[in-house]
Amino acid sequence: MDDRTLLKTVMGIIGRDRCLDDCAIIPFGDQVMVVTTDMLHATTDFPGGMTDWQIGWMSAAVTLSDIASMGAAPRFVLFAVGLDRWEQLAGVMQGAYDCCTRYGAAIIGGDIDRHCELTIVSMGMGIVEAQYLVKRSGARAGDLVCVTGTCGQAQAFLEGYARHKLALFEPQPRVAEGQVLGRMGVSAMMDVSDGIALSLYDLCEANDCGFSIESRKLPLPAGIPEVQAQELALHGGGDYELIFTCSRDRHPIAGVQYTVIGEVIADRRVFVDGHVLEKRGYQHTWV
Amino acid sequence: MDDRTLLKTVMGIIGRDRCLDDCAIIPFGDQVMVVTTDMLHATTDFPGGMTDWQIGWMSAAVTLSDIASMGAAPRFVLFAVGLDRWEQLAGVMQGAYDCCTRYGAAIIGGDIDRHCELTIVSMGMGIVEAQYLVKRSGARAGDLVCVTGTCGQAQAFLEGYARHKLALFEPQPRVAEGQVLGRMGVSAMMDVSDGIALSLYDLCEANDCGFSIESRKLPLPAGIPEVQAQELALHGGGDYELIFTCSRDRHPIAGVQYTVIGEVIADRRVFVDGHVLEKRGYQHTWV
Repeated sequence: MDDRTLLKTVMGIIGRDRCLDDCAIIPFGDQVMVVTTDMLHATTDFPGGMTDWQIGWMSAAVTLSDIASMGAAPRFVLFAVGLDRWEQLAGVMQGAYDCCTRYGAAIIGGDIDRHCELTIVSMGMGIVEAQYLVKRSGARAGDLVCVTGTCGQAQAFLEGYARHKLALFEPQPRVAEGQVLGRMGVSAMMDVSDGIALSLYDLCEANDCGFSIESRKLPLPAGIPEVQAQELALHGGGDYELIFTCSRDRHPIAGVQYTVIGEVIADRRVFVDGHVLEKRGYQHTWV
Repeated sequence: MDDRTLLKTVMGIIGRDRCLDDCAIIPFGDQVMVVTTDMLHATTDFPGGMTDWQIGWMSAAVTLSDIASMGAAPRFVLFAVGLDRWEQLAGVMQGAYDCCTRYGAAIIGGDIDRHCELTIVSMGMGIVEAQYLVKRSGARAGDLVCVTGTCGQAQAFLEGYARHKLALFEPQPRVAEGQVLGRMGVSAMMDVSDGIALSLYDLCEANDCGFSIESRKLPLPAGIPEVQAQELALHGGGDYELIFTCSRDRHPIAGVQYTVIGEVIADRRVFVDGHVLEKRGYQHTWV
């Protein structure tokens, strides 16, 4: 059992449409509020060597990234913190506060609990003009497939490349980039937190089209043999770049560093270099 | 170390004002959005014998209660669910869905995680006209102190009184009552989830006044010797009644079943029957 399969159970209860995007969407006057939540905890999400401050930073960053992926500006965040050692709270909250402040959001509340392991649930709210909201759906055959920044760095650190440590420990959500891309009218967007492959399959799920990318175009982490670096970019988790599609006439978009890695196709499958891309990446699993 | 002490650490980082109420407050057009989060997990919050459906129901109810305590109407809820056994998800989500539906809220999103024990974090959003918002602050000396329903039932079940099982397993948040009380202009309100004693001390923290209540006036659970029942009402957790203050000229308030248990006093302490009330109730603690 994996989390994408389990999500279908939730879809059956609350409705499929409520499960497709990185954030839920609420009308908010002339604007739209996007809302998201992420649960992180010690065993799975905080590798050894992270400081409490970095744990707090990461916990904020993952939620800000979800907000950025809708083209919205982060505004408010709440944190529910489950602690086995209360001494960690101050460092965690300071890291979360610094990350939120850096990206323009305020921490407005939360909950504290005693727990078997450090568990942090962030809930973020962002605001965007309705016409600039970007969803996972909206890709059209012929659009370009693009990704911000560099992919595979976080996983590279986990596989021994020490120089990429901060990519994993202090992720920088693409908050400014997401808003620029939204205003420039990109057609679909999400963040790449579980690797490019799973993200493309998630986009497939939300659209009536497929994707064809080229491995030689992937923006790869430095200092790693190319074949390994491609594997990390396609199937590694822990990056918080934005993957998006945009019509050719809108490219290039000024003010955002991104790479065109392929195109949207009518065939509802995912290809890399002409072969079907393996549907594999970071997933929670249960036995 | 206990959670109310630990909260002071958070106050030092994000600001004291953001930590005083049951919900955070966001301007929302002509209205106000209130937002809250609660973390519950198997070890502490779900006693043996609860069904998955009841666990989901309770997880929704605690957050709807926080929204009710501000006088707001629940609108949207998100759930982050950490699972050790994925088989529990369907029952949990159905219970959460049924509770939200019963009280007028929609589940709009969430997150699924693999976890060491069943952990559910609910985040709720409610809406209220700005003039009807009720906070923990606002109590004035001379106001009446009142509580809805019956107190101590949930704790009574934990101490062996089987007839009170549903009070603990299927709490009914005072959603309609909270909105009536808000519209009728009660001066301060919160929910009583950790017992009347701790609630009165929390209200003390948020106000420049104190409280004097009479034990013989407490609305007590049936079938329990009076002295024990008073102890349960004052110091037991797990009830989701509303405790509020209101000026004498607004009492009685039609449409809400509540009991006057005392009055607001200028002396910034908490008394029961003329003696200082022990500051004791449900708290998370760390060694």
